[in-house]
Amino acid sequence: MPHWQGLSNLMEEQHSLELKPIGIIHSPYKNTGAAPYQGYKSEEISQIEVFKDFEEGLKDIEGFSHIIVIYWFHKSQGYHFLVKTPWDDSLHGLFTTRSPHRPCPLGLTVVELLAREKNILKVKGLDAIDGTPLLDIKPYVPSIDERAVVKSGWLEGRLGKGRS
Amino acid sequence: MPHWQGLSNLMEEQHSLELKPIGIIHSPYKNTGAAPYQGYKSEEISQIEVFKDFEEGLKDIEGFSHIIVIYWFHKSQGYHFLVKTPWDDSLHGLFTTRSPHRPCPLGLTVVELLAREKNILKVKGLDAIDGTPLLDIKPYVPSIDERAVVKSGWLEGRLGKGRS
Repeated sequence: MPHWQGLSNLMEEQHSLELKPIGIIHSPYKNTGAAPYQGYKSEEISQIEVFKDFEEGLKDIEGFSHIIVIYWFHKSQGYHFLVKTPWDDSLHGLFTTRSPHRPCPLGLTVVELLAREKNILKVKGLDAIDGTPLLDIKPYVPSIDERAVVKSGWLEGRLGKGRS
Repeated sequence: MPHWQGLSNLMEEQHSLELKPIGIIHSPYKNTGAAPYQGYKSEEISQIEVFKDFEEGLKDIEGFSHIIVIYWFHKSQGYHFLVKTPWDDSLHGLFTTRSPHRPCPLGLTVVELLAREKNILKVKGLDAIDGTPLLDIKPYVPSIDERAVVKSGWLEGRLGKGRS
């Protein structure tokens, strides 16, 4: 038994972690059926409303062309460990997919920041549906966030390997 | 007043969102002072322990060379909207930085998956400290996750523009 087994057991029993949204996403996609599987090919514009209380943290964000948006899949209900995706008919391990139905329903999209007006960010490429709670915004930094991928598992060749 | 103002007010008053960790990160970095500012240049190996209950969701993950790891900054206490970073002496908007001290203390790192043994993933490039709660794992997919950055705001030239 590894020396850290005790810690792991402790953590499995621990209380939940709590998050409060810092904003809300206003999107042309009004429900889960309307959203694209991934937003990166879409030309649709979404508006990210950062609540006024958090606006100061946006200082100079308009200097960035791309940001990482983290949000809560609020329509997600439950999950399965083996899931079918739009890309083929096989069952895949949940953590090898971008399914919104996950134990921690956290969504993540890199989007293009088109404009900022006070606490509102106008972005392109966001696949979240209307009313999605916003949890965090981070700058997208290629030297930190990009990796030279060698293997893409079952997704190989299905979405294209490079930037589209 | 935009039509969605009512919804926003409602959300600001709403209850917290709850998360339960799906695993724990075992890292050579024993405290926040020991962790690198970003893990991507480090050769250190970390082990991600996905709790046994969630192991089935890892099916075929070893086919992927890179994964996105989302975790909880459990040592984060409070935050400021304007922060100093290791890169210069100016104050920057929190959401233009990767500071661990955030309203929603969610960490995000793209790591190289070296090996898997049952529910343990051996990875390189993870900057989380020992004992960090694991929230989610997603496949890293260049066509989804990479963007051709035009502007990197105050970070321009500080970290290098391309992949390192």
